[in-house]
Amino acid sequence: MTASTRSLGDRARDHLWLHFTDHSSYADAEVPVMVRGEGPYVYDERGKRYFDGLAGLFAVQVGHGREELAEAAARQSRKLGYFPLWSYAHEGAVELAERITASTPGDLNRVFFTVSGGEAVETAWKLAKQYFKKTGKPTKHKVISRSLAYHGTSQGALSLTGIPGIKQDFEPLVPSSIKVPNTNFYRAPVHADDYERFGQWAAEEIGRAIEREGADTVAAVFLEPLQNTGGCFPPPPGYWQRVREICDAHDVLLVSDEVICAFGRLGHDFGANRYGYQPDIITVAKGLTSGYAPLGAMIADERLMEPFTRGSTFTHGSTYGGHPVSCAVALANLDVIESESLYEHVQANEANFRTTLEKLLDLPIVGDVRGAGYFYGIELVKDEATRESFTPAQAERVLRGHVSPALFEAGLFCRADDRAEPVIQLSPPLIATQDHFDEVEQVLRTVLTDAWKAL
Amino acid sequence: MTASTRSLGDRARDHLWLHFTDHSSYADAEVPVMVRGEGPYVYDERGKRYFDGLAGLFAVQVGHGREELAEAAARQSRKLGYFPLWSYAHEGAVELAERITASTPGDLNRVFFTVSGGEAVETAWKLAKQYFKKTGKPTKHKVISRSLAYHGTSQGALSLTGIPGIKQDFEPLVPSSIKVPNTNFYRAPVHADDYERFGQWAAEEIGRAIEREGADTVAAVFLEPLQNTGGCFPPPPGYWQRVREICDAHDVLLVSDEVICAFGRLGHDFGANRYGYQPDIITVAKGLTSGYAPLGAMIADERLMEPFTRGSTFTHGSTYGGHPVSCAVALANLDVIESESLYEHVQANEANFRTTLEKLLDLPIVGDVRGAGYFYGIELVKDEATRESFTPAQAERVLRGHVSPALFEAGLFCRADDRAEPVIQLSPPLIATQDHFDEVEQVLRTVLTDAWKAL
Repeated sequence: MTASTRSLGDRARDHLWLHFTDHSSYADAEVPVMVRGEGPYVYDERGKRYFDGLAGLFAVQVGHGREELAEAAARQSRKLGYFPLWSYAHEGAVELAERITASTPGDLNRVFFTVSGGEAVETAWKLAKQYFKKTGKPTKHKVISRSLAYHGTSQGALSLTGIPGIKQDFEPLVPSSIKVPNTNFYRAPVHADDYERFGQWAAEEIGRAIEREGADTVAAVFLEPLQNTGGCFPPPPGYWQRVREICDAHDVLLVSDEVICAFGRLGHDFGANRYGYQPDIITVAKGLTSGYAPLGAMIADERLMEPFTRGSTFTHGSTYGGHPVSCAVALANLDVIESESLYEHVQANEANFRTTLEKLLDLPIVGDVRGAGYFYGIELVKDEATRESFTPAQAERVLRGHVSPALFEAGLFCRADDRAEPVIQLSPPLIATQDHFDEVEQVLRTVLTDAWKAL
Repeated sequence: MTASTRSLGDRARDHLWLHFTDHSSYADAEVPVMVRGEGPYVYDERGKRYFDGLAGLFAVQVGHGREELAEAAARQSRKLGYFPLWSYAHEGAVELAERITASTPGDLNRVFFTVSGGEAVETAWKLAKQYFKKTGKPTKHKVISRSLAYHGTSQGALSLTGIPGIKQDFEPLVPSSIKVPNTNFYRAPVHADDYERFGQWAAEEIGRAIEREGADTVAAVFLEPLQNTGGCFPPPPGYWQRVREICDAHDVLLVSDEVICAFGRLGHDFGANRYGYQPDIITVAKGLTSGYAPLGAMIADERLMEPFTRGSTFTHGSTYGGHPVSCAVALANLDVIESESLYEHVQANEANFRTTLEKLLDLPIVGDVRGAGYFYGIELVKDEATRESFTPAQAERVLRGHVSPALFEAGLFCRADDRAEPVIQLSPPLIATQDHFDEVEQVLRTVLTDAWKAL
């Protein structure tokens, strides 16, 4: 058959190498190919509809098919389709930097644009290294991050990432990255009866790690406001505030990695504003453009730029960081978010989203439902009472063998993740309403009930 | 003044952190802000015109202001503005993978899309590491690259990069990256009278580096078809062929980093096709979309994917790798390149471009003019006869103090690079014709004549 008469899903197997994909699963099956989107739904080439329960990949805040964003992309492409931010500037970068810094906490007034979240994280680490070299503390270069946390896959960002399974074949990575416990209270090793004390313990673990390494060697701590991988671990009350004190005591930069959490995922512009803490750097991407164009940013405290205004250069940059079309799309995206009051919409609806998902706790396979805003993880367990986990073989059979294909079959696009305990990740477009929550809950109820029976 | 009454160039100083920029240079001056482009020209906010002698940043092959590319971006944004390539596919990625692999050398039939060239390089190194672990050679992980070569700035790609000045403040980087000499014949340390013997020596240096490290520890060699940094070092005849033999002898993957060279910069689809060699992996970006949207790719030999079709996963991926809008823009860009026969245009005109630039050799400050296609470096020297270099202080005064601002003032956007010997880099849009070559030569003649007088 010629290319044009074969399905896209068949042709996809010829030349495409998919991300994080076991291609043996497509030896005898076509690759699902998405061809269009509308609001919170996407459609494959057969015309089948899926609720986009992951917002693409934690990105599509305003939903699919937005004419305003398409127009912004076309307008900028016509006017100036590309120009770098090396030494010179372009219009969109100037305006977007002003827009972003208008509501950042404290003195986070400086925007270094990148092409992605991973590159924003690389940028933040590199800045931390060079900043301390330019300010008389050249031995501060190590970084601390949390178990299971995902910060990207380029080799610097991957070194920060705390998921051993996606790192081990690439070692050695950038040395000097240290891991500390996350805030998984559901499986708390200590203070399992006291959320706040558990949070203080987790914060102190960061302080202890800094001391073990020697504060003079540690440059930065990287934390998500609410950690995604592992299944949405929110910060216990007071956790971030204590981490801030610890960083201050040791002159360590505090980086809030908000690639997922910023721009509405938690119902606020920034996670730092939701939880009321002061980072030195915020990294963003995804929601900034609702995913319609690749863009990220490192937003830094004014004092971190100071050495670079006195004759030094931050010797870092990239071709596509702050792409003019991406900046134009971001401005249009922020206009939509504002004109439709999407942050307020999430704030008004997040309790209902939670309540709807919590109905699933009556299923024996559902151990925990946790998250905030429009960002939830549902942890699956073998025994709800004892919280006993599935064995790896059982997790494989339950998630990959049953839940993942069944959810997709039932028209719910989300992620069944087994990189740690099995969790279902949900992160719908911010335009979602109670009808969508109900749709998600109904699909999950049916699929998880069947999965339990099939065990 | 309110934001709207101040110039963009003034406002740019408030919140923007530019790439690779010494911000002290804008303490008393506005940042030049580009606002539109048309063909091979860009215009700043004052309406001043510049010839884009760098194609943005080695990217804008088809020139600025292309309606076809703007339309493609808008059409795809409306239809499906974002979807990841994790486990599933989208239309543009399927079609673009077919299109790209139609003319790759040998069995380079597999395309892993990325968001940028740097990410393509990270992907290639990560694949080399994991491929050997999956095929019974787990100790092969080191990489070899060339002195002064630029391969990106994320910490893995930066480790491969051979420019000490942009690395030193970020060490330690990914360990196990080894540097070998490049093919700078103008300053050849041996065989300075025999280009071919010099090339063989440079190739053998790669073999000797592999032997010093132990072939069982070396995974890949990364080389540009024609190296950019340092000022366009072409490969001597037979160089690539000898490197291929050496890599075969040691079971080391040969990566052709064509982020700049592919898609017409050298008048061909791929540098490997121009110079007639067979790499195992080609990395691309920039020209693939003419820069209108961020996109890169790692194109791999079919055999490198083989372990990942038998139940293993290449545990790598990124949110924006193979963005659907970027893929649509790439397809439209390749359509323009084809319908306007731009590769053939470069082939037909490259000798004239060279001849025009070589006129500058009559200036005492011009030591060497080298390159191929629409890609040239002009090396500036203190003494043409002895090839004596400027001291760092003189280079600073000549380049930053005089040449850079004077070129910009004269309406020529290009790069005066002092990361090694001072060179002027030229890489115009592929649509450029003799009139543009003459324009470039005239500006350079005036500016370089003045620079020499001012010494």
